[in-house]
Amino acid sequence: MPTVSREVRLASRPHGEPSLDNFSFATVEVPEPNPGEVLVRNVFLSVDPYMRGRMNDAKSYVPPFQVGQPLEGSAVGRVIASQEDGFPVGTYVQSFYGWREAFVAPAARLQVVDISVAPASAYLGILGVTGLTAWVGLNRIANLKNGETVFVSGAAGAVGNAVCQLAKMHDCKVIASAGSEEKIRFLREELKVDYAFNYRDGSPLEHLSKGAPEGIDVYFDNTGGPQLEAALNSLRNSGRIAMCGGIAGYNTPVPGPRNLVQVIGKRLRIEGFIVSDHFKDFPAFFQEAIPALKSGKLINRQTVVNGLDAAPAAFLDLLHSGAGNIGKMIVKLAD
Amino acid sequence: MPTVSREVRLASRPHGEPSLDNFSFATVEVPEPNPGEVLVRNVFLSVDPYMRGRMNDAKSYVPPFQVGQPLEGSAVGRVIASQEDGFPVGTYVQSFYGWREAFVAPAARLQVVDISVAPASAYLGILGVTGLTAWVGLNRIANLKNGETVFVSGAAGAVGNAVCQLAKMHDCKVIASAGSEEKIRFLREELKVDYAFNYRDGSPLEHLSKGAPEGIDVYFDNTGGPQLEAALNSLRNSGRIAMCGGIAGYNTPVPGPRNLVQVIGKRLRIEGFIVSDHFKDFPAFFQEAIPALKSGKLINRQTVVNGLDAAPAAFLDLLHSGAGNIGKMIVKLAD
Repeated sequence: MPTVSREVRLASRPHGEPSLDNFSFATVEVPEPNPGEVLVRNVFLSVDPYMRGRMNDAKSYVPPFQVGQPLEGSAVGRVIASQEDGFPVGTYVQSFYGWREAFVAPAARLQVVDISVAPASAYLGILGVTGLTAWVGLNRIANLKNGETVFVSGAAGAVGNAVCQLAKMHDCKVIASAGSEEKIRFLREELKVDYAFNYRDGSPLEHLSKGAPEGIDVYFDNTGGPQLEAALNSLRNSGRIAMCGGIAGYNTPVPGPRNLVQVIGKRLRIEGFIVSDHFKDFPAFFQEAIPALKSGKLINRQTVVNGLDAAPAAFLDLLHSGAGNIGKMIVKLAD
Repeated sequence: MPTVSREVRLASRPHGEPSLDNFSFATVEVPEPNPGEVLVRNVFLSVDPYMRGRMNDAKSYVPPFQVGQPLEGSAVGRVIASQEDGFPVGTYVQSFYGWREAFVAPAARLQVVDISVAPASAYLGILGVTGLTAWVGLNRIANLKNGETVFVSGAAGAVGNAVCQLAKMHDCKVIASAGSEEKIRFLREELKVDYAFNYRDGSPLEHLSKGAPEGIDVYFDNTGGPQLEAALNSLRNSGRIAMCGGIAGYNTPVPGPRNLVQVIGKRLRIEGFIVSDHFKDFPAFFQEAIPALKSGKLINRQTVVNGLDAAPAAFLDLLHSGAGNIGKMIVKLAD
C-alpha cells in the first residue's frame, strides 16, 4: 500500500499581511525509496518568520516559494523505509523538505540527529538552526566579549531566547524586549535577563537608558524599526549590531533610522548575516550548547501546536509580536 | 616687539545652515616661547566639513568649538622662534591649533613635515589627514581588494578625490559622484574614474546601474542620504560601506535609508570610523603615498583661497556641493 502524505502549499502570494487564504492543503502519494534514498515520516515541523519573505516573488538570499507547491522548511522526522546503509529505519533526521507529513529524499541531503543527547524537537530549537543563528550572531558577527551589555529585540522568540541564554552564559548583562506581558514574564522569570521591557509600552530609548544607563555594547537586531533607532542612540563607542531579522518591516516597509550617522562618531559596526553561510559552525556550537542543555544551563523553550492543519495559523501568529508564542514555534505531527 | 596674530573665532552657534555672522575676527599678542616651546607662523590652514559638527554645542567625538574662542583645526606653518632642539627656526610643522596666523605651543604637540619630498600644502591634502582618511577607509575599514568596484560620494572633495586615486592605484573600478559639472569633469578628465555622475542629475541608483551593472563591492560614504540608499541597493553580497561623513545631514537631518534591511540578505557590513583613531597608520600610508606622489601616480589637487579673511566663506562654500572647491580646500596665509 503506498504511503500518502498531506502537505501545505502556497495557494497565492500575500499583499502585505498574509492570511489563511494564502495556504492550501493537498494529499499526495509518496513513492518507495530508490537505492540511496530513504522514506521519512516527519515528527516536528519548524515554523519560522523568515518564511514570510519567501512568500513574495522577490529575489532574495533564498528562492521564493512557488505557488501550488509545498512550503519548504526545516523538519525532524523518522526514517520508515531505507535504501541506504547508515540510515536504518528508526533513525531521526533533520531535513529541509518542509511542511509535509512524509517524503522520499536522497539520504545525502539529510542530517542524522542524536536523540540520546537531546529530545528530537530540540534540533529545531535551541540545538537547531535558530540556536545556531543566535550563536553565530553573538560570536562571529558581534564578537561578543564576556561581561559586555547586550540588547536583543524579539527576545522571547526562537532566536531571541537563545541570544539571551547564550549571552548570560558569557556573564553578559542582557536587556531584552518583546511584545506581550507573558513574554516579558518569561524573559524575567525563566531566562533571568537583567532588564526586560514591552517595546509597545513607552519609548525603547527610555527603557534602554533605564536598563543600561552605561549604554549597550552589542545589539542583536531581530526587528529593525524604532528599536534599531533606539539601539543606535544607546550604543557605546565601538559597539556592534548583528542584523538578523527585520520583522518590523516584513509586511510593510518601515523608515530607516534617522540617526544612522552616529555610526561614524561612535565607530559602530553593523553587519548582516544569513545562518546558512555558517553551518560549518555547528560542531563548535554543539560543543558549547549540548553540555549546557544537559546541565540545565540552557533550556529548550518551545511553543508546540498539534497537527499539520494548525501550521498556517501558527505561522501567522508568529508575525504578531503580541501573540502567545514563546521560544521556538513548532508543529507536532506524531509522537 | 611682540608677535601679533589675527585669529578667527566662533561668534555664535548656527541654527541649521551657518552664515558669516557665526564668525568673528580678533588680534592677539603671542608670547615668546618658553623652554620646550616653539613659535610658529602658519603658512596654510585646513578647511574641513567636519568643523560644521563642532559648531554645535553637542557631545561628539571631538569637543565643540567654544563661543569666543578661535576655531581649532589643522595647519602647516614655519617655526620662527624656538626653545627646543630638533625644531630649529625654518622647520615646517603640522599642528592642530587652528585658524590663527601664529601661535606658541609645546614642540611635543607638533609634527615635523618634510618639504623636500612634497610641498608644504600637500601635508594638509593628499599626504595629510584627509589622504589618510581615504587610505584608512579603503584599507582598514572596507578591506578593499584589487579589482573590486568602488563607489564614492563627495568624490571631488578632499577625502573623495584621494579615495578615487588610491582605488585606481589598486586597479579598482571607480564610480564617483559630485555636485557640479566642473567637479564631474575633474573626476573624468584628471582622475580618470570609470564613471562619474552629478548626484542631482537623475537617480543615483540609475547611475550606479549604468556605471556598475554588476553591482558595487565597496561604498565610501561621505554624504549619507539618498546616495547611501542607492548604494545599499547596488551593493553585491558581502559588500562593505565605510562611513566617513554625512554631509547631506550636517545642517538638517535626513531620513535613514528605507532599505537598510538589505544588510541582512546581502550580508553587508557598515562601519564608521574616525581618522584620529588611526594616526598610527601614517607610516604605512606614507610608504604608499609619497612614492606615488613623486612619480605622478597620485596628484595633490587643492583649492586655495588667500588670506585669513577668506576662511569663513571658504568653509561655508565647502558645505555646498555645487560650489567650486575641488580637492582639498586650504587657506594660504604666507609664501
